[in-house]
Amino acid sequence: MDIKNVEIVPYFRTMIRVVIIGAGRVGYHMAKAVLKAPGLALAQVYNRSDFHPLFDALPVSRTRDSNQIAKADVYWITVTDDAISNVAESVSGRDGWVVHSSGGQPMDILNFIDKRGVLYPLQSFSWEVKVDMTQIPFCIEATEAEGLEILQKIVHALEAQSYNISSDQRNYLHIAAVFANNFSNHILTRAQSVCREHQIPFKILFPLLRETVSKALLLDPEHAQTGPAARNDTKTIERHEKLLKGSTHLELYQLLTKAIQSYYGKKL
Amino acid sequence: MDIKNVEIVPYFRTMIRVVIIGAGRVGYHMAKAVLKAPGLALAQVYNRSDFHPLFDALPVSRTRDSNQIAKADVYWITVTDDAISNVAESVSGRDGWVVHSSGGQPMDILNFIDKRGVLYPLQSFSWEVKVDMTQIPFCIEATEAEGLEILQKIVHALEAQSYNISSDQRNYLHIAAVFANNFSNHILTRAQSVCREHQIPFKILFPLLRETVSKALLLDPEHAQTGPAARNDTKTIERHEKLLKGSTHLELYQLLTKAIQSYYGKKL
Repeated sequence: MDIKNVEIVPYFRTMIRVVIIGAGRVGYHMAKAVLKAPGLALAQVYNRSDFHPLFDALPVSRTRDSNQIAKADVYWITVTDDAISNVAESVSGRDGWVVHSSGGQPMDILNFIDKRGVLYPLQSFSWEVKVDMTQIPFCIEATEAEGLEILQKIVHALEAQSYNISSDQRNYLHIAAVFANNFSNHILTRAQSVCREHQIPFKILFPLLRETVSKALLLDPEHAQTGPAARNDTKTIERHEKLLKGSTHLELYQLLTKAIQSYYGKKL
Repeated sequence: MDIKNVEIVPYFRTMIRVVIIGAGRVGYHMAKAVLKAPGLALAQVYNRSDFHPLFDALPVSRTRDSNQIAKADVYWITVTDDAISNVAESVSGRDGWVVHSSGGQPMDILNFIDKRGVLYPLQSFSWEVKVDMTQIPFCIEATEAEGLEILQKIVHALEAQSYNISSDQRNYLHIAAVFANNFSNHILTRAQSVCREHQIPFKILFPLLRETVSKALLLDPEHAQTGPAARNDTKTIERHEKLLKGSTHLELYQLLTKAIQSYYGKKL
């Protein structure tokens, strides 16, 4: 019997081999998740520089030599935006799919590769904080249906949610994320600052804030809007402006009040 | 034996009798909570107009006649800001404490009453949504230590948290709440709007948003700030501005970016 003719059992035939390129926080958490996912095999992690000590605990082959990159169905690039196209060159002649994991870069940053795509986990990662994969939305994109299918299978095996998002949509998703996360965090910073300036414990606002967020997510924020600006309560707005006179927060208070008024003004 | 000389048992002696004035959402939820609280007796709910049908389920005496207001240790006014001083006149000759429940009004709106104060639950209430009292911070203020003590006892009996907050602090707390709630809700509205304009499901942002809020509350938002503005990533900011050209969101994007830059610029 010729060993080459033995039919490989379906389980192994459908196993998706993944090489992760880049050993930062995204690479680390994705490597951990791929190792645990049924149907996925983590063939290797490739990184040009030293590996974080946390990688020592992962049962996976590692290399720093671009000539030693293992064969895979998917090469998942998790390096910083500036380095993507550079490291992609190391796998550009391969047969597998080459995908990057960046929210801010178009798929076509890899346009010298035919089988290219994006597999972008929309979450922030810290080295030490465990990741609940079921809470991670993945934006996927590929040049062909075959690529989309393989990326969908990976997301499914990771028990996460997949969304088909084009490069153009991803640009705007990034902007929406800047609003939802960076800007709202800054607004909370201002609230904290007002509290601190007046010896008010910031945590007094936590229950109301949690309520605001759950209501915004449940009802949808546009319809959950309350407050002096939304109800055009000029008496309260003027009182607040007077209280904030000379404060660095006055301008932002006025700008956001105007933004709310013009947003709802246009809808009326 | 003269019945008048019988010592009342301590339990009854320390029972605090409360009359709630106003039968809106705050009055309703506070009435429900007082009814359940050990050590508190809900003597009556007074309201000038009709009672919401939900009051039918509460085992409490109700009146619409200001001459029939029951005797109490605390008269808790839960009407709208404009009506506070007006209804307070109905109980101004009484022996008990007269407190209002407004975040936006100073204690001294009741300055024609000596034993005056504030018992302000910092949360928003809906008729049908059950309230977890342990999640409600109460701001308390009174003209005398005796008043503060009785208000503290009420908050304690309600199993909530009490904070001594002066009228002046309460003004700024209100402003901080406008930032933390109204403004951050509007920021989420903008994020939602960007998503809608580009056929991106808004819910894709929920996990990241939840993460942002818990990080802000855990770390404190000032130190949790991330994003292009905070790291002065002008390349990304310019790309976003270009993408938002002609959009109603551009101005707000630029203003908040500047606000973050100037906030951290000043700290450096």
